Amino acid sequence: MEPIVRVQNFMVSSDGFGSGEGQSLERPFGHADPAVLAGWAGATAHWPNRTEPGGTYGLDDYFTRDFSNNIGAEIMGRNKFGPQRGPWEDHDWQGWWGDEPPFHTPVFVLTHHERPSFSLGETTFHFVDASPVEALSQALRAAGGKDVRIGGGVQTVREFLDADLIDTMHCAVVDVEIGRGERLWNSPDDLLDRFHLEKIPSPSGVVHHLFWRR
Amino acid sequence: MEPIVRVQNFMVSSDGFGSGEGQSLERPFGHADPAVLAGWAGATAHWPNRTEPGGTYGLDDYFTRDFSNNIGAEIMGRNKFGPQRGPWEDHDWQGWWGDEPPFHTPVFVLTHHERPSFSLGETTFHFVDASPVEALSQALRAAGGKDVRIGGGVQTVREFLDADLIDTMHCAVVDVEIGRGERLWNSPDDLLDRFHLEKIPSPSGVVHHLFWRR
Repeated sequence: MEPIVRVQNFMVSSDGFGSGEGQSLERPFGHADPAVLAGWAGATAHWPNRTEPGGTYGLDDYFTRDFSNNIGAEIMGRNKFGPQRGPWEDHDWQGWWGDEPPFHTPVFVLTHHERPSFSLGETTFHFVDASPVEALSQALRAAGGKDVRIGGGVQTVREFLDADLIDTMHCAVVDVEIGRGERLWNSPDDLLDRFHLEKIPSPSGVVHHLFWRR
Repeated sequence: MEPIVRVQNFMVSSDGFGSGEGQSLERPFGHADPAVLAGWAGATAHWPNRTEPGGTYGLDDYFTRDFSNNIGAEIMGRNKFGPQRGPWEDHDWQGWWGDEPPFHTPVFVLTHHERPSFSLGETTFHFVDASPVEALSQALRAAGGKDVRIGGGVQTVREFLDADLIDTMHCAVVDVEIGRGERLWNSPDDLLDRFHLEKIPSPSGVVHHLFWRR
């Protein structure tokens, strides 16, 4: 199969926000509580950040186990990589994920500020000042025939949607209101002109939204 | 993660049958119509037997795309491999799947009758006269740390269930009655003493039944 461009396990509040207001080192999702947004995923056997054995193998697990399935590279926005803004003043910051980030592929971080690439575990971070289409071209080359994940945050997903570069998108809509912050959509139905949409309620309470290009 | 033993994409009628009566070369599922049982899977982008581009990327596709994900070997019953019974009289028969079977791993075929192993594409078939636990031991060694799929048919799945060797099981329950043939269960709830169960209705009309060990 030809490689495709995918958004996976992207968590959205019932009022359409992917992150709250006021990102900081202590609060990567601003005032929103990541434990509430990610609880459904953390309960599954294949949650990439799981450190203990156990977890569920129901519907939600099909989404977390698909995280690395046929993915060859990720593109993320700078705000997913860290809370800093402006020129890189501290190269000691290597992301939120510790010594073994869950990506295990090249990751392209979109930023207007230069920084050398570095590797951490099986993940290599590259910093690119590029348009969505240019960044995607680099990521597809690095992915070696596999798919490319658009990892977020909200602004990055929106930019790739606006450029019509996304083939499939899985959003987990969580039953919580965030009220302000980074908004992905007013309604998921806004995308129906370009995408098929299945809404699949999970026993965990989240509603999986599966979009694929018409 | 430790390797587990999985049933995947196993198709069951609403009255609990995995196959009809009267298997033959022309009718692998006996009087039951495989196009009705497998229609939901054939419509997806990742159906292993797909030859044309296209297909859906909704819920059902998460199940077909998981088919080969982290699978290192399969165990199947003789009736899944072919319609013959008794000693192998015709070694020309190499299964239903043509020159490139969709397994791409070692496959252990349970039979009381000896036959040499052979390879076809990326799949190697071994013929073993063994109990479920013995066959599983061989398959786990061959799987090299990955999971083992119990591929069916019904009798094989039942034998592995009876021996309590199955960790997770996905059955797609199709809205059709078969009436007679190979019955997997009277009710899926029969397994609740040993398994968690989520029943997830798909927009395609099938109901995905996800079991995992308590």
